[in-house]
Amino acid sequence: MSLFITFEGIEGSGKTTQLRYLQKHLASKGLDVVATREPGGCAIADGIRALLLDPGNTTMVPHAELLLYSAARAQHVAEIIRPALQAGKVVLCDRFTDATTIYQGVGRDLDFGQLEAINRFATQGLAPDMTLLLDYPVRDGLQRALARNRADNIEDEGRFEMESLAFHERIREGYLELARRDARFRVVDACGAEQEVAERIAAAIDRFLETGE
Amino acid sequence: MSLFITFEGIEGSGKTTQLRYLQKHLASKGLDVVATREPGGCAIADGIRALLLDPGNTTMVPHAELLLYSAARAQHVAEIIRPALQAGKVVLCDRFTDATTIYQGVGRDLDFGQLEAINRFATQGLAPDMTLLLDYPVRDGLQRALARNRADNIEDEGRFEMESLAFHERIREGYLELARRDARFRVVDACGAEQEVAERIAAAIDRFLETGE
Repeated sequence: MSLFITFEGIEGSGKTTQLRYLQKHLASKGLDVVATREPGGCAIADGIRALLLDPGNTTMVPHAELLLYSAARAQHVAEIIRPALQAGKVVLCDRFTDATTIYQGVGRDLDFGQLEAINRFATQGLAPDMTLLLDYPVRDGLQRALARNRADNIEDEGRFEMESLAFHERIREGYLELARRDARFRVVDACGAEQEVAERIAAAIDRFLETGE
Repeated sequence: MSLFITFEGIEGSGKTTQLRYLQKHLASKGLDVVATREPGGCAIADGIRALLLDPGNTTMVPHAELLLYSAARAQHVAEIIRPALQAGKVVLCDRFTDATTIYQGVGRDLDFGQLEAINRFATQGLAPDMTLLLDYPVRDGLQRALARNRADNIEDEGRFEMESLAFHERIREGYLELARRDARFRVVDACGAEQEVAERIAAAIDRFLETGE
């Protein structure tokens, strides 16, 4: 069976860690799982990712930023995600179109109708079957993201991580509002030990696989 | 007076050379002229240009390509073109939205309505006051472009230059069709000595400056 699951949430909410737990959980059920991430996931998109995450590019305007994220996504969908789904695999993706809607729409104040049109163009209409929104307090998430950068010897913070606490609060609220309006979302409480969060996610996925709900 | 003039045409039609002639002609009239080009024109857009023109990126899908050109344009318009026009300058730009419409719409068979919507988003509605379409035979243009690459010791050809003669014929026809439908175009016969072509362009511009036609 093909299945497309995306992970969304603020910086430091544990998306990458939880994606790995879910990958193991699904593999243990005998499913063929592809784990990928945005922006990136293939060579051309990684090149675009490098431009986007370069803290030196501080003059980048919101419209250029959105179009770069969308270009990386168009390549990623065509080269990685759609072929994997067509081959009957489960695709787990760290961030997808909702990240664009929220970070560019709420965070950069771009028009939602235009964002939706560009999202549709970039994905050629591909939407996730399920989106796991990892909900986590902003202050804790940012502390976790900053600690991770330091551990990785990353001196500069990413451009979004340099934004204010208020910016990230708007992002968190934007995600929750989006989840209220679209049934494909599952809001997961991302507080607590990572194994506990992983169990919550596994339970939600198992229910979806068994009942379609 | 601010004035925004773009140069369009197939590979090797002489856009870059003629842009320099026009720059001198307008400067000799005491006008403040900014010469720029797409894709590129500022540091972020030049980074995107490098990705686009890399002949190694042969797996790039048309949707990603379009979004990359548009991202570079969004940054170029916001950082270079609009500020220059607001300061009352004349901006001469080597390729602009029409290149996207033609190369991606005719060449890559993308939907014209979607192209137009993304062009509008990237430019935030900025359109040229006049577009000079340098019309030139495809075979001669490609020979000129290839000779130039060799003179520059460029071993690989650009991705569009590797396309077939039939592809470039469709591009030439597409440009001429666009020019028939939009009054801002001036179709310039780009055959003959470069000084002769420069005189044709100068005459068209002088008439526009004097009469607005």
